[in-house]
Amino acid sequence: MKQAKTYQVVGRPEARLDGEEKVTGKAVYTVDVQLPGMAHGKVLRSPYPHARLACVDGSKAEKLPGVYAVITRDDQRRLGMFGAAYKDQTIVAVDKVRYVGDPVAAVAAVDDATAEAALNSIDVEYEELPAVTSIEEALAPQAPLVHEGVSSGGELMGQHYETPKEFSGTNLCYRFSYAKGNIEAGFEKADYIFEDTFSFPRVQHFSMEPHATVAHVDGDRITLWAATQEPFTLREHLGEIFRVPLNKVRIIVPYVGGAYGGKLAVKTEPLAVALAFKARRPVRLAHSIEESFKTVTRHPARVRIKSGVTKDGKLVARQCLIHMETGAYADAGPRVTQKAGYRCFGPYRIPHVKTDAYTVYTNTVPAGAYRGFGTLQVTWAYESQMDIIAEKLALDPLELRLKNLLKKGELYTPGDTPVDCDLKEGLLRAAKEIGWNKQDHKPNRGKGLACCMKDGGGTYKVASAAVKMNSDGSIILLTGTVEIGQGARTALSQIVAEELGVPLSHITVAQLDTDVTPYDVNTNASSSTVVMGLSVQRAAQHLKRQLVRHAAKALKTPADRLTLKQGRIEGGKGQRISFEALMHKVFLSKAGEIVGRGVYQDVKSKRAALGSPTTFWEISWGGAEVEVDRDTGEVKLIRYVSLADVGKAIHPVLCEGQDEGGVMNAIGHSLLEEMIYKDGQLLNPNLVDYRVPTFSHLPLGFETILVENQNGPGPFGAKGTGEGGLLPVAPAIGNALYRATGVRLYDLPLTPERVWRALRAKNQS
Amino acid sequence: MKQAKTYQVVGRPEARLDGEEKVTGKAVYTVDVQLPGMAHGKVLRSPYPHARLACVDGSKAEKLPGVYAVITRDDQRRLGMFGAAYKDQTIVAVDKVRYVGDPVAAVAAVDDATAEAALNSIDVEYEELPAVTSIEEALAPQAPLVHEGVSSGGELMGQHYETPKEFSGTNLCYRFSYAKGNIEAGFEKADYIFEDTFSFPRVQHFSMEPHATVAHVDGDRITLWAATQEPFTLREHLGEIFRVPLNKVRIIVPYVGGAYGGKLAVKTEPLAVALAFKARRPVRLAHSIEESFKTVTRHPARVRIKSGVTKDGKLVARQCLIHMETGAYADAGPRVTQKAGYRCFGPYRIPHVKTDAYTVYTNTVPAGAYRGFGTLQVTWAYESQMDIIAEKLALDPLELRLKNLLKKGELYTPGDTPVDCDLKEGLLRAAKEIGWNKQDHKPNRGKGLACCMKDGGGTYKVASAAVKMNSDGSIILLTGTVEIGQGARTALSQIVAEELGVPLSHITVAQLDTDVTPYDVNTNASSSTVVMGLSVQRAAQHLKRQLVRHAAKALKTPADRLTLKQGRIEGGKGQRISFEALMHKVFLSKAGEIVGRGVYQDVKSKRAALGSPTTFWEISWGGAEVEVDRDTGEVKLIRYVSLADVGKAIHPVLCEGQDEGGVMNAIGHSLLEEMIYKDGQLLNPNLVDYRVPTFSHLPLGFETILVENQNGPGPFGAKGTGEGGLLPVAPAIGNALYRATGVRLYDLPLTPERVWRALRAKNQS
Repeated sequence: MKQAKTYQVVGRPEARLDGEEKVTGKAVYTVDVQLPGMAHGKVLRSPYPHARLACVDGSKAEKLPGVYAVITRDDQRRLGMFGAAYKDQTIVAVDKVRYVGDPVAAVAAVDDATAEAALNSIDVEYEELPAVTSIEEALAPQAPLVHEGVSSGGELMGQHYETPKEFSGTNLCYRFSYAKGNIEAGFEKADYIFEDTFSFPRVQHFSMEPHATVAHVDGDRITLWAATQEPFTLREHLGEIFRVPLNKVRIIVPYVGGAYGGKLAVKTEPLAVALAFKARRPVRLAHSIEESFKTVTRHPARVRIKSGVTKDGKLVARQCLIHMETGAYADAGPRVTQKAGYRCFGPYRIPHVKTDAYTVYTNTVPAGAYRGFGTLQVTWAYESQMDIIAEKLALDPLELRLKNLLKKGELYTPGDTPVDCDLKEGLLRAAKEIGWNKQDHKPNRGKGLACCMKDGGGTYKVASAAVKMNSDGSIILLTGTVEIGQGARTALSQIVAEELGVPLSHITVAQLDTDVTPYDVNTNASSSTVVMGLSVQRAAQHLKRQLVRHAAKALKTPADRLTLKQGRIEGGKGQRISFEALMHKVFLSKAGEIVGRGVYQDVKSKRAALGSPTTFWEISWGGAEVEVDRDTGEVKLIRYVSLADVGKAIHPVLCEGQDEGGVMNAIGHSLLEEMIYKDGQLLNPNLVDYRVPTFSHLPLGFETILVENQNGPGPFGAKGTGEGGLLPVAPAIGNALYRATGVRLYDLPLTPERVWRALRAKNQS
Repeated sequence: MKQAKTYQVVGRPEARLDGEEKVTGKAVYTVDVQLPGMAHGKVLRSPYPHARLACVDGSKAEKLPGVYAVITRDDQRRLGMFGAAYKDQTIVAVDKVRYVGDPVAAVAAVDDATAEAALNSIDVEYEELPAVTSIEEALAPQAPLVHEGVSSGGELMGQHYETPKEFSGTNLCYRFSYAKGNIEAGFEKADYIFEDTFSFPRVQHFSMEPHATVAHVDGDRITLWAATQEPFTLREHLGEIFRVPLNKVRIIVPYVGGAYGGKLAVKTEPLAVALAFKARRPVRLAHSIEESFKTVTRHPARVRIKSGVTKDGKLVARQCLIHMETGAYADAGPRVTQKAGYRCFGPYRIPHVKTDAYTVYTNTVPAGAYRGFGTLQVTWAYESQMDIIAEKLALDPLELRLKNLLKKGELYTPGDTPVDCDLKEGLLRAAKEIGWNKQDHKPNRGKGLACCMKDGGGTYKVASAAVKMNSDGSIILLTGTVEIGQGARTALSQIVAEELGVPLSHITVAQLDTDVTPYDVNTNASSSTVVMGLSVQRAAQHLKRQLVRHAAKALKTPADRLTLKQGRIEGGKGQRISFEALMHKVFLSKAGEIVGRGVYQDVKSKRAALGSPTTFWEISWGGAEVEVDRDTGEVKLIRYVSLADVGKAIHPVLCEGQDEGGVMNAIGHSLLEEMIYKDGQLLNPNLVDYRVPTFSHLPLGFETILVENQNGPGPFGAKGTGEGGLLPVAPAIGNALYRATGVRLYDLPLTPERVWRALRAKNQS
């Protein structure tokens, strides 16, 4: 392990910059924004999973006192269609509704109650159509089609997506295929072949803050306050929908109360803008929790994984067939599918691989990006199967993994970034921490391990930042990274503070506003510390170079002898000048500012399977110990150990928070969470019926270990973190459950009912 | 005259960018800003011109329902003192009140009525003191002192101001002295010596929008929406008052409804912030017109001007003694005094000059910056005296002026910028336009001329700007120039459009916000077109260089063969690429932005009388024809011709608007406006009793002529304009009045009463 350098600010658990505001309730979120004359928006949603719209008539509602605007499909006419990958969405349904919750109309009125009442005055005639609400139904021959036409293609984060023509007349809208080696030859070399199918449930992001937008339109200029993770990309979408250039769309992002991918791309925003256009006044459109459930979810998935192994336990071939259910509209589905397809081989050396991943439309809520982005669905499969293989080969699951793990520097696929971490070291540490070799053989107890890897940073990042020194030496950071609760403002400010040799308190972060904040593509994929971190670091270094150049003149000392310390620039021999004094020298008055700018841009490479090599590998290990209540089927987490390869923790407590939060998040889909559809109706879109983890679900023993090898591509050797913590949770628990009970489950979540039924079935067999 | 180049956007009367918003009433001003929980502020003001404060007790008011905060002198304790030049002001009076209207306490309450009621519950005991309410009273021996101590010094726009120690025990607070040649020797060479004393009244800016601030405080972070002309300088003042660094003060500037200098430095802002701190909620503090009258005015002045002339009409010596009445607090008084003292020699070649200008405290409303900034007081004197001299020498006033005018390239004073205009050409043009040689000898009619000059741009400017190209080729301009109605956003955008070869509609201007907008010292002194104009032009050129460099690569064409046209870059031989396509090439996706930055900084020079040579000379000529009603004394403007040397009119209609507005503004103090004090009480602080010019006061014939020699230091040869139009108005009218009636008046305004009395006195003599 590379020895850590000592830093003044980086690596220290500084108080969060947004902490005081948040704990005192002063932090401003989008719903707190009030504009003069602001109207309140409400959305009328389809009660049917699939129906032709015979009539939508808002004329009665329009005449109600206090109603400022009613949006129906007539208003879509002048607007562009939209969607993260495909342009398959409209602000309200036009020809037919495609899921329960599909927006049919919207109202802006003087208050919420009036808007609610107006919704009831909108006449809608539905002609019900047969619906498909699962992958199986959607893929059945003669299945009803969610979209009759082929979805048109689009660009998403620098890549083009398009529905293959041969999918016409099916509910498929995208396929990702990849192969390396010769899959048939691979399986021929195998002594054993394992073929298993796993499923992953539909789960919701459940951000503390549901989706919210305040829109204000003046002439052709649109101003938005929005709870979004990607204001600059949202700006582009809105420009296309409303047919205005980017400089006519201004998006201001207050604090965002959790996002997890659910606030990427386009959600409530265009409907809020359309209402504001028509109402000729600002409009707030804020979702209830239930509406957010009807806006976006994670992709339910079916993963068939076939692995060929030699008798001494070497993986030689793996073939995956993946179906990702993207609901009624594609959203980021094609991209999530691509990532699931690409990531399904796991952190293992497998000479022959092949994957086919499909995106499937159904008459359910659209599924989009969600923390982990297609990876959880496949880690659940491949890390569960590793234990199945180990048992068959009578190998210790740890040993089987160690035999096959990629080495640092090895290639996952040709053209991608070499593996940047010692996977073995981490796995051994996880095993040690969970007490793998000290199996204490208590009844109904078992331990499980998992080791997971995803290409971090998404694909094709462009980011920039500015660091500004005022005439008194105080510093303002301009960054497009959204503070979604992850603590980005604090960590990014630490990078600036470290570079400029000032305490963290000298830095403030400016409000995010697309008109003036330097461009950043988005806040996602555990990328901000690396991608924005590098932009910010380069901006600080650019500022530093300018300061040093001025100081060299002022102090008559060569620039290379100058260092920045505590708000001063010092030469070796007692020369020193404070930032403030230097600024006054440069501007000959108490005036002016010096601005440093930094830019980060990924590379593209035709050799890389996904078009550009990953920015870094996000790697995580998990060890779980469970105790199973055989009477109720409840799986209790006795201990959970999570290891995250963070390269260098800029803020260790925030990294731990990300990792712990990730584990808790994953405990949800591992043990509790599942959106349940019956007859096309979502049965549990609320806190009472949909169970997210609470403090009572915390593992009794819970530990996060940060692996710091100082070798990440980010500032000071940092890598990104935030999603890694989730990846091993489900398979580690599933494997522990098996070792505790001998019961192997293939479908998440591992609810008491499901476990109890499996235990009973096993006892009966 | 240099031939004008042809431009695509510059020089054309484009539609104002803010026009639609303003005529439809949608433009947002500070009073339109609403924040959740916002309280309303009111100020309790002194009814006495001078009194010791025996007691200020806000405890009763604090207990009233709906009252959130009461500010009294106790709250000043933790705060710094402030003021534009000297730190002689407090947020409310501490030891004594110094003028009628001096803030004594302030309240923030749930609404205006509650706040108003709370003011009445504040107990204040005053012990009246004798007051001085004119220059004469203030300078009298044993005069009561407005300030007992010597005012401490301060920095204002890169210069240090300080009260000389010998002024201790007087009401003087500043002196500016300047001499060139040998004044005694000069007068000895003269054949005639003229000595006259002129006075200038106290007038108010009368912006359509009175002073207004909305303040929001979170922890130690202050956010302000403010009607200010200098957000960055205001930020510095607030930082000092509230003892926080600059990055803890954020100032957002909506549209400003007129400023004219009255919104420079510190006005209502710190009181609004103090209320917000104490109320723990946002506070709006918006003045009534009457309160703005009690906040800032133009300096009343007494100008004694002594000129020595040879019998053939050559000026050989001039000595001025100037007193500027700055009221109860200095505000920009010392600087205004300096400028009055420096500018009193007029646009003439005078070998021996000497000036002493004093700033005088009185118990009246503070006087600060006001369009023209100390110049009107002295142009009234020197251009009136020129006609007195001409008559005595039996010379045509035009001829006398032509004999003495500085030539282009001559020095006004050593070390300053050489005169950058043909003064003679302009004066002859003004004479021609007003029909100087065609005196038609109608009864009671007369014509007058005046030629005036001021160093433009204030002193020591630091400005910067950014021009950002979005990924679709649309452009956002970031500028710190405040849109105060002058049309700066439009003119500055024209400069960008011209440089980048796009129509004006491709550009939007970002909201002014000190956190993110590039630094600019202020919007004043007719400087923005030159100072910010150059910053903006350099930013656009910086952006252009980057675009061309990328395009050269993309088009495989040398950069020097590329031109920008209509949103494209073209090579000579059919190569072309749109900005949008180029951006996509650079960022390999629909992402990113390219930012150009531009900076302007004045030079400093010890050789220059004021520390730095003027940025440009603002030069104007006026010709007036009046008809006098001998029964009423009314002076009617039959015709007025105004010439402004604008170098190159970026937007001719806006330049004409500035000039016409300037003339109308000056008609106010020439014929109508005067704030009248009696027993220390201001008698006419309102629209009924204080007469500003209306449409009925428009000259019957009114012409503005833009002199364009393409030789200004600004973009495309532009110079600044905006104040020049005012300078010749009063003396041109005064001179015309004399030629119509033989009556010479020395005191403004030339009200019917004053003219009638003078006519009667003349008839009686």
